[in-house]
Amino acid sequence: MSASAASTAVNKDGTALTTLFVKCLVRIIRAQDSYGSWDRKLDAELLANFIVTKDQRRAIPIIGNPNPDVRRRIAIFYSAVGLAIRERSGLMASPMIEISDEGFGCVHLTVGRLVVVSKIIRDAHRFGFETLWRLATAGSILVDDAIAAIEAYPEVARA
Amino acid sequence: MSASAASTAVNKDGTALTTLFVKCLVRIIRAQDSYGSWDRKLDAELLANFIVTKDQRRAIPIIGNPNPDVRRRIAIFYSAVGLAIRERSGLMASPMIEISDEGFGCVHLTVGRLVVVSKIIRDAHRFGFETLWRLATAGSILVDDAIAAIEAYPEVARA
Repeated sequence: MSASAASTAVNKDGTALTTLFVKCLVRIIRAQDSYGSWDRKLDAELLANFIVTKDQRRAIPIIGNPNPDVRRRIAIFYSAVGLAIRERSGLMASPMIEISDEGFGCVHLTVGRLVVVSKIIRDAHRFGFETLWRLATAGSILVDDAIAAIEAYPEVARA
Repeated sequence: MSASAASTAVNKDGTALTTLFVKCLVRIIRAQDSYGSWDRKLDAELLANFIVTKDQRRAIPIIGNPNPDVRRRIAIFYSAVGLAIRERSGLMASPMIEISDEGFGCVHLTVGRLVVVSKIIRDAHRFGFETLWRLATAGSILVDDAIAAIEAYPEVARA
């Protein structure tokens, strides 16, 4: 990576930290730190586990059960999507996650009677994003789509 | 139980077997019998595991993981609800089930973007119905509610 490309990446990652979705994600992670042992950690440090580079990805085997850490990470990611949806729409969005022992699965976020997010999960073992920016984008797109769905069917979301 | 009460119960159970929901349930159970070893079994025999009397219920401990048999039974029950919804509406209803190791959980059946069934599960360990008739009624109510939801929001169910 050239020096300028590297600095663009850093800038983008800096912007990522200011998005609503990433703020929600950090808030959920910090909420689990009952004893304040992460108080001095930067947000980017807390999110480090969500960043999986291409090479790291390839190195993770996809046999056997996805481990509890990665399952928890997936759960936190979608909870943050739900929280961001609530911040923007004022409506509770609750996630439901079903992941098989082979790492395949499905996520639904529902608001009232409306399914606002519906995602297929593959290779749960390798869940992660190449950069903070990609993490922020992936989450924000889900939030935007969910808000669009709520606006399209407001009476179902309130049913 | 007096003789007439017993015969009413038998009649009701007979009627239960003719409901759309129970027919769907039996169809799903028979579909898993790849080698035809249950071909001579009566429908009521195949459903015997779904019947849990009050005394049996009380005897089932609710500590530890709900066992795989009861988890499968819950999955089959809701798949049958989904199948009956499809028979009546022509639309695919797919179940999503999340049950914790403590036996608490949640079931959603969705059609398109519409949540047509949303149930909280408690004491998954003790899942079952007192009589065939109760089994049929519980399933049929869910199917009726789902159909009503689809009729109320047809465009969301087709989204």
